Amino acid sequence: MSILIQNVTAVTMREELPVMENAFLGIQENRISYLGTEKPQESYDEVLDGSGMVAMPGLVNAHTHTAMTLLRSYADDMNLQDWLFQKIFPFEDTLTPEMVYEGSVRGIQEMLASGTTCFHDMYFFQEETARAAEELGIRGVLCEGITDSVLEKKLQKTDALLEQVKNGSGRLKVGISPHAVYTCSEETLRACVRYAKEHQLRIHTHLAETKTEDLDCVKAHQMTPTQWMEYCGIFDVPCTAAHGVWFSDEDMEILKNHSVTVVHNPVSNLKLASGVAEIPKLKEKGINIALGTDGASSNNNLDLFEEIKLTGILHKGIQLDPTLLPAWEVLKMATVNGAKALGYENLGLLKEGYLADLILLDFAKPHLTPNHNTVSNLVYAVRGFDVAYTLVDGKIVYQKS
Amino acid sequence: MSILIQNVTAVTMREELPVMENAFLGIQENRISYLGTEKPQESYDEVLDGSGMVAMPGLVNAHTHTAMTLLRSYADDMNLQDWLFQKIFPFEDTLTPEMVYEGSVRGIQEMLASGTTCFHDMYFFQEETARAAEELGIRGVLCEGITDSVLEKKLQKTDALLEQVKNGSGRLKVGISPHAVYTCSEETLRACVRYAKEHQLRIHTHLAETKTEDLDCVKAHQMTPTQWMEYCGIFDVPCTAAHGVWFSDEDMEILKNHSVTVVHNPVSNLKLASGVAEIPKLKEKGINIALGTDGASSNNNLDLFEEIKLTGILHKGIQLDPTLLPAWEVLKMATVNGAKALGYENLGLLKEGYLADLILLDFAKPHLTPNHNTVSNLVYAVRGFDVAYTLVDGKIVYQKS
Repeated sequence: MSILIQNVTAVTMREELPVMENAFLGIQENRISYLGTEKPQESYDEVLDGSGMVAMPGLVNAHTHTAMTLLRSYADDMNLQDWLFQKIFPFEDTLTPEMVYEGSVRGIQEMLASGTTCFHDMYFFQEETARAAEELGIRGVLCEGITDSVLEKKLQKTDALLEQVKNGSGRLKVGISPHAVYTCSEETLRACVRYAKEHQLRIHTHLAETKTEDLDCVKAHQMTPTQWMEYCGIFDVPCTAAHGVWFSDEDMEILKNHSVTVVHNPVSNLKLASGVAEIPKLKEKGINIALGTDGASSNNNLDLFEEIKLTGILHKGIQLDPTLLPAWEVLKMATVNGAKALGYENLGLLKEGYLADLILLDFAKPHLTPNHNTVSNLVYAVRGFDVAYTLVDGKIVYQKS
Repeated sequence: MSILIQNVTAVTMREELPVMENAFLGIQENRISYLGTEKPQESYDEVLDGSGMVAMPGLVNAHTHTAMTLLRSYADDMNLQDWLFQKIFPFEDTLTPEMVYEGSVRGIQEMLASGTTCFHDMYFFQEETARAAEELGIRGVLCEGITDSVLEKKLQKTDALLEQVKNGSGRLKVGISPHAVYTCSEETLRACVRYAKEHQLRIHTHLAETKTEDLDCVKAHQMTPTQWMEYCGIFDVPCTAAHGVWFSDEDMEILKNHSVTVVHNPVSNLKLASGVAEIPKLKEKGINIALGTDGASSNNNLDLFEEIKLTGILHKGIQLDPTLLPAWEVLKMATVNGAKALGYENLGLLKEGYLADLILLDFAKPHLTPNHNTVSNLVYAVRGFDVAYTLVDGKIVYQKS
């Protein structure tokens, strides 16, 4: 199967050639085979007219709990402890594999329709999320959330998940997710590290989300959560840490030294009153920053374009500096930085040889007119529903009706 | 003309009966004539099936500069002084009436398509914005922005605008807009007050937007901008003040004593690095809070559902309290509080006898499923494109294709 997209404005996410007007983008099988302003010589099975549209790499949602779509609008505006212990945990105790499948289908449909082509999941019954992901055509990295009481069971489930994914489309990978410092003992954390090393997996965890997590960890271990994770060996494996609201300067040095990616989840951090992560400072230190929606119970949708806009405006407003995190830098977080966070080396740019995961946005709309600056409009004016086509692995997996 | 909407979930915005399931909502001419769970006896010219949809009052965008859609993505990520003096003001110097008409058409189309049925405008060539508003069917209050150098000309233009509106549909009103303390002298402010009193108009102004405005005013007048506005008589007239980021406790008392409405513009305040208005504190003092998008050059769209969500999450995150500004309170800001801010007594609720300005949202979508709580979903998950129908003055003025 081959597709040619013609007459499109291509936002490549490459520094040397950020935006190409009137471009031709060719796809052969699951790779970008051509990108240029001259019409390519080869013939294609299908031709898409991209007039009035913008093509860019598909978005990477680097931290979510997809099946938590089931809990959308189930509990809001509550204190964190009441929210967790009176509402979320009791609900989750009733979850069945079939429910997780249903929640995953809805969440993946929502992500594909709003431009996310790759997701980084942490939840229960990941075999069901894998099944939904295979059926709907998205790319992703799936991780069973691990806490002390379920360690052995979850490692066995991860064995089975590795087998399931190995026999699948090739679009899915498996990671390992010790949940957080406050739900995992040193033994659990070290067991996860051993498993990750043995199977060459990446680690996906929560880190420094709340002030309480920070204070409790210091009290228990005389170390910050970041210091404790380092001590337990978590950062000896490639690691992606979600939230990162409460880092000290010393924590940031540790993250930098171990090449840890921090996933910024601004909607969730604000809504749950966790605080505001110091993204400009992390970025200045050279730490890789990706973006995530978190789950739909703390967001309450999975439209990564909302995180893009909020990241673009929030830190300007908090630090009273309108030049912080310009549009281009934020778009990188949602694309190529996310791909890097999930361990992909050929994803997140429009570039020959890269995986053909990309989206087309319809710019022929009042709220995107005029278009003085395509990158600005992508960050500050676009919303997920402007996505007209979503392609993953060279296939059209969503088309706006 | 009469319309019956049946089988709809009605979010009335009335405290005594917030949400009615399976409701029938009847419209005769430009008023809501019936709302109940029994099918009404009367016959209607048109019947709309509201199954799977939510009806609510149309949104009120209480502070915008509609024709600034022309400057969307024209200048972003810049220092405020460079942004204003190198980009925005020089562009605005080139504006013609025809350009303002075109920009107004796009902005109004965008507002109607994202659920705004009433807008509060401040800009140049308001006769052109009025023309666009009459053609497209939106409700609004139009104000020529007044600064020292154009005072006389603008008062004459306001005379003409009053005449134009008097001969129109009845959906438009006129207000008077002294731009801000830093662009209007005491004489200009007092002239605006005299004009407002003479013509019984409301005042629409910018107030306490930036720290610089506050410091400069204190330096010039030994008063904060709020104290200075009070001194110049601005609050002797019903007044709606946009932004309000830098209020002292004493300022808040002044606003409360004069029943001034504060319009919160969180996207613009963050993007321009103005800061974060203390909305929970203003609300606690009993001050009326409405929401606005500001212009598309500092937002960069006019989707008021973005302000709704951001207002619902921002203050929780900044003050580390997830119970602040619960969903219902935020929805009130975008509807009935906005109507009050613009001087309407029969707008902003679904209630018999009220103006039939309302929207229908399509909830049969993955990102709004499940719907455990309609009000939560309206604030935290809905986006403007979920609007399926927009009605103003009893007429369908937007229908999603």
